[in-house]
Amino acid sequence: MKISIERAALLKAVSQAQSVVERRNTIPILANVLIEAEGDAVSFRATDLDIEVVDKTLAQVERAGATTVSAVMLHEIVRKLPDGALVSLTDDGASGRLAVEAGRSNFSLATLPKEDFPVMATSEYASNFSARAADLRRLFDKSKFAISTEETRYYLNGVYMHVADSDGGKVLRCVATDGHRLARIDSGLPDGAGDMPGVIVPRKTVGELRKLLDDDDMQIAVSVSETKIRFATPEITLTSKVIDGTFPDYTRVIPTGNTRKLEVDAADFAQAVDRVATVSSERSRAVKLSLDEDRLILSVNAPDSGAAEEELAVAYNDERLEIGFNAKYLLEIASQVDRENAVFMFNSSGDPTLMREGNDTSAIYVVMPMRV
Amino acid sequence: MKISIERAALLKAVSQAQSVVERRNTIPILANVLIEAEGDAVSFRATDLDIEVVDKTLAQVERAGATTVSAVMLHEIVRKLPDGALVSLTDDGASGRLAVEAGRSNFSLATLPKEDFPVMATSEYASNFSARAADLRRLFDKSKFAISTEETRYYLNGVYMHVADSDGGKVLRCVATDGHRLARIDSGLPDGAGDMPGVIVPRKTVGELRKLLDDDDMQIAVSVSETKIRFATPEITLTSKVIDGTFPDYTRVIPTGNTRKLEVDAADFAQAVDRVATVSSERSRAVKLSLDEDRLILSVNAPDSGAAEEELAVAYNDERLEIGFNAKYLLEIASQVDRENAVFMFNSSGDPTLMREGNDTSAIYVVMPMRV
Repeated sequence: MKISIERAALLKAVSQAQSVVERRNTIPILANVLIEAEGDAVSFRATDLDIEVVDKTLAQVERAGATTVSAVMLHEIVRKLPDGALVSLTDDGASGRLAVEAGRSNFSLATLPKEDFPVMATSEYASNFSARAADLRRLFDKSKFAISTEETRYYLNGVYMHVADSDGGKVLRCVATDGHRLARIDSGLPDGAGDMPGVIVPRKTVGELRKLLDDDDMQIAVSVSETKIRFATPEITLTSKVIDGTFPDYTRVIPTGNTRKLEVDAADFAQAVDRVATVSSERSRAVKLSLDEDRLILSVNAPDSGAAEEELAVAYNDERLEIGFNAKYLLEIASQVDRENAVFMFNSSGDPTLMREGNDTSAIYVVMPMRV
Repeated sequence: MKISIERAALLKAVSQAQSVVERRNTIPILANVLIEAEGDAVSFRATDLDIEVVDKTLAQVERAGATTVSAVMLHEIVRKLPDGALVSLTDDGASGRLAVEAGRSNFSLATLPKEDFPVMATSEYASNFSARAADLRRLFDKSKFAISTEETRYYLNGVYMHVADSDGGKVLRCVATDGHRLARIDSGLPDGAGDMPGVIVPRKTVGELRKLLDDDDMQIAVSVSETKIRFATPEITLTSKVIDGTFPDYTRVIPTGNTRKLEVDAADFAQAVDRVATVSSERSRAVKLSLDEDRLILSVNAPDSGAAEEELAVAYNDERLEIGFNAKYLLEIASQVDRENAVFMFNSSGDPTLMREGNDTSAIYVVMPMRV
């Protein structure tokens, strides 16, 4: 193999690959990136056995071929090369080394045989459709904070992406929950996605996917089967196993009969919650909301360290209500709000509370109260 | 006590105090800041028993008095208050709480008795002088990287500040070393500093001092005794114990007979060292310098992972020389260079090497070679 490639293009391709590689792993070749050159393109492939990413980019291929080298080391080297450098990668097959050359810099990196690299098996996908990057970004960005980190509840360690019925017809929906809070985000159903099986997309995949979604209008090709999901741009293909489990019936958790409505400026609310939470100890970060006619008092009482209270002007005209929440959960939910107003729908101090952005029901959040 | 103070002034004063407070300590009152209000000013005092910082600022004092509250919590609260807020601090003496109020935010913080706060004993200082902030900053910024972190060699855990003889007469000098590398930085001797005892300024004090030195032309009042050093601006007084030990005779370590001179662009050199070091494993980060007529080759050979080589055009006209250094030490020293050129003076591959910035001898560095 012998190729020449501009440093910026190489860096972009290797960056995505090295981020999939697990820093600590016992199988040496999983630390490597598989470089394959053919025609006028070179591809960089990395995997952790659950996720595989392939980044294909144009290059001047003088001699086709393939080899594997340390993904992190190659990334570090390319990152440190001067901007605008032309980089050549040469593998003579015999030395067991890959030569990386740019200007007066010469590197010779240990390789492992390309035959040992675990390429993910290709699958039949039940559903193939195309989605706007901005839509996918909204679906995952607004739901991922609620993903559970409890390994025993592995079926909650991802975002449940599926087709659901909504008031306006079928939607593409992402749901995540850890049992304390839940996010349910809807987007218009793309053509051809109607028969997509519901899948749980793992947390790490959600993170890697995010890097493909920066360009609002980019069309992302999505393919889904019962066991795998694939997202592809013209350059990058991200394939991931999905979590082998059943996502619980979340619809039972979403309150439908909550009638006490609070409307509050989302930014003011988040800042006030953040401030009053300062006095509480790390463990029991409970914030009490005391609601009365157009008035909200946020308060925290931490006997050891102190107390805090803050009043906000709000829109509320129902009975007096006192209800407590974990400060972290309230903050995270309030920070999802893109518009001015957050709308909370309460029932009683012991019931789950619903939050949405203004009157928009395409993104709703549920948070469990805690006793205060 | 009852005072009113603008949020920005309060934040600045409390910031400096809370950074001195140790996050983990077993004596509760050491987590607190002592607030003392009298006349038209309020002072914030914090200590870790080795360093004491007092930040005095103007405030509207309605009722004089003093109390102590958690430095970190007060800092967090003030930081989160909106810009421009007027903050009032009220201590009624009876409740054991300090009320912090701003707009519609009310906090009530647990206090500890001001009598229990360990105020550092005042000292007689043998020497008092005034130094420009920019000069002090240069002395400490350029030497602190060489401070040892080995706790057993406690006498190297700081910067040795003393009066020394130089070619041009007496100078104020800072020296730090960890046995592998050494920095020696000189500055003009301020009036009245001639009889200053040499003192070892602890690492943490060097870090805290740095925050007083942002304004180039600020005059810093320095007071030194055998056991303490004090730096003061009109607002902030930083007092620190000095390390009770004898700094070794560093002059023996500084080579005087090195004649082989290498002149190299400091930035190019640092970048090249950084690049070739990429292939080496963390433990033995050795970089080999091979010098020949106006040519420097930097190389690293790490059998497990690979090899790297880079050539630089330099000014050198002496015998061929091969010498190895720890990459981290080379990088740190090269990054001290403010001018274009770094000048290395070598003897043999087994001897300490001297580095300076161009022809300026007011900042010199020594680095021990390693076998490659």
